[in-house]
Amino acid sequence: MISLAELQRRIASGELSADAAITQTQEAVAAQDKTIGAFVCHDATARAQEAGPLRGIAVGIKDIVDTAGFPTEMGAVIYRGHQPRADAPVVMALKRAGATIIGKTTTTAFAANDPTATLNPHNHAHTPGGSSSGSAAAVAAGMIPLALGTQTGGSVIRPASFCGVAAIKPSYRLLPTVGVKCFSWTLDTVGLFGAGVRDVAQGLAAMTKRPDLVLPSEVAAPRIGVVTQAFAGAPEPSGAEALQKAARAAERAGATVRELAISEIIAEAWRIHPVVQEFEAHQSLAWEYEQNYDAMPPLLRGRLDETKGGTPAEYDAAMEVALRARQALSAIFGQVDVLLTLSAPGAAPRGLASTGDPRYNRLWTLMGVPCVNVPTLIAEGGLPVGVTVIAGFGDDAKALAAASFVENALRK
Amino acid sequence: MISLAELQRRIASGELSADAAITQTQEAVAAQDKTIGAFVCHDATARAQEAGPLRGIAVGIKDIVDTAGFPTEMGAVIYRGHQPRADAPVVMALKRAGATIIGKTTTTAFAANDPTATLNPHNHAHTPGGSSSGSAAAVAAGMIPLALGTQTGGSVIRPASFCGVAAIKPSYRLLPTVGVKCFSWTLDTVGLFGAGVRDVAQGLAAMTKRPDLVLPSEVAAPRIGVVTQAFAGAPEPSGAEALQKAARAAERAGATVRELAISEIIAEAWRIHPVVQEFEAHQSLAWEYEQNYDAMPPLLRGRLDETKGGTPAEYDAAMEVALRARQALSAIFGQVDVLLTLSAPGAAPRGLASTGDPRYNRLWTLMGVPCVNVPTLIAEGGLPVGVTVIAGFGDDAKALAAASFVENALRK
Repeated sequence: MISLAELQRRIASGELSADAAITQTQEAVAAQDKTIGAFVCHDATARAQEAGPLRGIAVGIKDIVDTAGFPTEMGAVIYRGHQPRADAPVVMALKRAGATIIGKTTTTAFAANDPTATLNPHNHAHTPGGSSSGSAAAVAAGMIPLALGTQTGGSVIRPASFCGVAAIKPSYRLLPTVGVKCFSWTLDTVGLFGAGVRDVAQGLAAMTKRPDLVLPSEVAAPRIGVVTQAFAGAPEPSGAEALQKAARAAERAGATVRELAISEIIAEAWRIHPVVQEFEAHQSLAWEYEQNYDAMPPLLRGRLDETKGGTPAEYDAAMEVALRARQALSAIFGQVDVLLTLSAPGAAPRGLASTGDPRYNRLWTLMGVPCVNVPTLIAEGGLPVGVTVIAGFGDDAKALAAASFVENALRK
Repeated sequence: MISLAELQRRIASGELSADAAITQTQEAVAAQDKTIGAFVCHDATARAQEAGPLRGIAVGIKDIVDTAGFPTEMGAVIYRGHQPRADAPVVMALKRAGATIIGKTTTTAFAANDPTATLNPHNHAHTPGGSSSGSAAAVAAGMIPLALGTQTGGSVIRPASFCGVAAIKPSYRLLPTVGVKCFSWTLDTVGLFGAGVRDVAQGLAAMTKRPDLVLPSEVAAPRIGVVTQAFAGAPEPSGAEALQKAARAAERAGATVRELAISEIIAEAWRIHPVVQEFEAHQSLAWEYEQNYDAMPPLLRGRLDETKGGTPAEYDAAMEVALRARQALSAIFGQVDVLLTLSAPGAAPRGLASTGDPRYNRLWTLMGVPCVNVPTLIAEGGLPVGVTVIAGFGDDAKALAAASFVENALRK
């Protein structure tokens, strides 16, 4: 993989030109993408900018994010050839920081269930996860150092876990979702993929102009609460092993680690996540579903067919649960610095029919709290499994620092 | 003006066909709009739908809201001829309810400061207010029974007050802003204009499928807290007179009315509204401002030039103030049912150079609480002045009911 932080160091020191850095990633895309299929479209002529903290950094953008320079097709035939007029604010934030947008990455249709043909770079017989399939795979395959994805259930953290890359789903609305195709406005969150935790931290700091997100040179040992999310069912052995391995490594490295019980209202928030998600999706995708029913992607269409009966009263009750759960979760962050939990039930499933199960991700998306995936182990078939480090709302710097602590602990 | 509720009654009883209702409004547009200039474009061939609670209801849509059937030009040359692929969810909600979209209404550029050429139907030498200028004017001139607008500072309630129409800015995100050109995602709110309070209540109930928003046949006398917003400066005599007149009328009709002191944290939220608004606008409009600087509308461009230096730390501090103020405001709604305050400093200013001052509206937009404008008096020059009735977050039904109580009290 290409480390963004390492590229930045080499470019700053003059060891590598920004142009040469872009050329290297262009060559990697040319060599790899015919196999992996991570890009929907790719500008082989894109060049480096001259200034900015992300000069020389080639970025792939999930194809539900508006770009003035590329079509934005949402992974769906309804939007074939669709050309937005403007760049989304997150794309402009990358450009302002000096990055080079080199292409659009594959997305499941409307960032929902219908899979792409993208392969998992670690094992081509397996899914890379989704919905941000291309972004995770492109970083994992060493094509690009940074990619944007989005998460409504588990669409950033799960593919990062399956592809063995670091990723952050920041606090709700730290990155604007303006110009990003909406599925659920209460849930949709823009996230970043990179080779390691430091890489996504550098990317996020540059995009947001928040230098406090850059990792400190020394990270203090965090107080970690391990959450097994029993309400979401049991994980596979590889998922359970990853959680245990990360917890033990952190403890050996000096962290205080204890298992935390999660209150009933938080488990209830896990249960009602789909109520919020589908009620809003029926509004967000009303034009597509009602006026283009036959052209809708079949898995998403089936899901919308099934959830047609959602009522405002059910939605209001679910939103009330979410509010109370956020308050309860906020109290937990008085006792521990971060939570540690599963990023996925286990390694990436075989085949491309499903992008895997977001059941360990969706609660945290609804809570709006920052989540960082840390690659943890390699399971059978060469497939990676990660864990998630979670901090309180707005404490993205703390989530990144603790994730970096866990990442370092795992290397020892 | 055309009453939506009255049209519904006549159509339901068979007294009027839905087609004839649309034809009447088409004729009104044809007769009036060459003078008023409320429409950017208008479909003279639009016909009634056959079913739905809003069949026969012609609706005008502010031209920052995406429509598949009309261009969406944002009141800005940068978007001249821009044709969205999809209808925004609020447009689909109207269509689902049986309404007929007959055209797009004028908006100040990007719903900010640069005015339109629309005239105030009550006095052509005065502004109709903004940014939802065309929607307010089209309803006021009796062209259409319902129109959509948006508010980030005071862009629904202020033009409603200046044009003598009822309007609701609902609770934050009761109506999705998906497919609506973003200025500030924390503030932007979609609202409705109608002839009277019952009319906007019927429109909102049909769009959201929330029958509890329909006014009850008898409205109980509310406990009203009068808020003068001294922190926003003194109103003009006509604004002060409207507030006093509405308070006295409500009291005579049986309401409990008392003046309420507002805590310092809420006044502080009023002060920091522009910090939130401009920090987000710099991101939302990054593509327009950075890549189309010369084509930007001059007043908005100047405002963005002036506020370039906003920092994440200032924004975070402002968002924290907003959160604490929402909590403080929520406690006030334990003591009173609704607040009553100014909709504008006074009547519509003379000329079209400015759309007036949103200083009495912006706090409530940041608080996310439902606001209803009730036309209250006619000042010099035949210009209307309204007042605002405000309920707690999510209590849109209560805001509408209390506004209807005040509206009835003023008729006695």
